[in-house]
Amino acid sequence: MNKIEHIGIAVKSLEAAGKTYQALLGKSPYKTEAVVSEQVNTLFFETGDAKVELLEATGEESAIAKFIAKRGEGLHHIAFEVTDILAEMDRLRAEGFRLMNDQPKRGADNKLVCFVHPKDACGVLIELCQEAG
Amino acid sequence: MNKIEHIGIAVKSLEAAGKTYQALLGKSPYKTEAVVSEQVNTLFFETGDAKVELLEATGEESAIAKFIAKRGEGLHHIAFEVTDILAEMDRLRAEGFRLMNDQPKRGADNKLVCFVHPKDACGVLIELCQEAG
Repeated sequence: MNKIEHIGIAVKSLEAAGKTYQALLGKSPYKTEAVVSEQVNTLFFETGDAKVELLEATGEESAIAKFIAKRGEGLHHIAFEVTDILAEMDRLRAEGFRLMNDQPKRGADNKLVCFVHPKDACGVLIELCQEAG
Repeated sequence: MNKIEHIGIAVKSLEAAGKTYQALLGKSPYKTEAVVSEQVNTLFFETGDAKVELLEATGEESAIAKFIAKRGEGLHHIAFEVTDILAEMDRLRAEGFRLMNDQPKRGADNKLVCFVHPKDACGVLIELCQEAG
């Protein structure tokens, strides 16, 4: 794990939350992106070498919609940048961590991603992400 | 807000969670510290220029104990480094954010800290922190 790449925050409305975080962080977001496969729209802010990613569900089956229905808006995941996601997935499996996908999948921001089960990380949803080629 | 300074994770046992995060991050923690005034013990890991802080309650009145009783272990707060915490508190008040303490208080890791109310930040507990002189 090289560094925290971003923090993901589940929000009800990207428009409202975008204004809130623009005021909070004192800067404008630098991009928005839809991830159709995950039924989310995202909005990114730069803060040092880690980003803040706001996530809004676009459908009821989205993991973000389910999270908000259960717990309300709030911190959703931490993403760590890795250099070789396949090697890191092997290392974590060998350490006994359960991964939520067998193969890396395409995430937002041109990343290959994989999630570690929150039950194996003290209730925290951990994302591994590698810049896609 | 200069950058994400650390992510705080509420855990039941610092010893157990420390082993979990050591395996997850592939590195050892670099320090542990008790914050008696907040009734917490902390354990820190470096990950790029942001840290992961594990927090264990040492008393039932600790905010960490209350958090875990209500929601279980998990992501607790994001801390942003600021250069001038008093100026940043004034800026946020002027933007309409409610602060949870009127004056900065002493936190872990030689920091002056102040918290923004989660209701004003999409359910996220935001900490401002400035290196204490």
